Amino acid sequence: MPPPPLPPALSEFLSAPNPSVIATLRPDGSPHSAATWYLWEGGRVLVNMDEGRKRLEHMRLHPQVSLTVLGVDSWYRHVTLLGRVAALEPDRELEAIDRLCRHYMGQPYSQRDRGRVSAWIEVESWHAWNGGRPWTG
Amino acid sequence: MPPPPLPPALSEFLSAPNPSVIATLRPDGSPHSAATWYLWEGGRVLVNMDEGRKRLEHMRLHPQVSLTVLGVDSWYRHVTLLGRVAALEPDRELEAIDRLCRHYMGQPYSQRDRGRVSAWIEVESWHAWNGGRPWTG
Repeated sequence: MPPPPLPPALSEFLSAPNPSVIATLRPDGSPHSAATWYLWEGGRVLVNMDEGRKRLEHMRLHPQVSLTVLGVDSWYRHVTLLGRVAALEPDRELEAIDRLCRHYMGQPYSQRDRGRVSAWIEVESWHAWNGGRPWTG
Repeated sequence: MPPPPLPPALSEFLSAPNPSVIATLRPDGSPHSAATWYLWEGGRVLVNMDEGRKRLEHMRLHPQVSLTVLGVDSWYRHVTLLGRVAALEPDRELEAIDRLCRHYMGQPYSQRDRGRVSAWIEVESWHAWNGGRPWTG
């Protein structure tokens, strides 16, 4: 699997409000997966979680993650980014979740009474498929 | 996260040809994820891989997997199944991949010159969301 940077076509693909699934490690080392919003910004991935989410504990114990992004129009185009959580940051003003929510829903996030945490993911390698064939951009 | 069986509404959801992402463990224990077809049959999950797929090696070393299934109509409904690969079986007659391909594409699998392997996943726990709220069926 090649390292970054990604080819421009794949970077453009990642910039759309696509469905995605993030894989993390549970404390016992087994894999966990969950659907998530993400933002592709400057070659890094931003995700954001409710402060009570178990996934946060996963990331603190094991920073390795894998994110598979499915095309919003066709899931037969998909890109997987493997990497690690480089930073976990409290989203005190809810600025990050608002940015994510605007990207996906066109409006700020409605729930304002819960703490949120952002995770920045550094990409170490990637693979991509388009209609059953490797997608190299 | 509750154990199986799943509520009937979730079992019905899983029976549709939904997009899904499977998380496995790489040999070094870090998570990997990839889009996949799956079949929900008798409370177990069937996936099927080209014989050259690295994911097969992952499953042989670490049978733990996690599968997140997104609704084919809206990915804001999704079900995650955590479990382990209970059996890896050569798909000698391509019967399993044909079954998967008919489910998703309405026709048998076109590539007949590559070996395939089926994995049966036993579900140990699950979680589900519907529009940002836990989905209990």
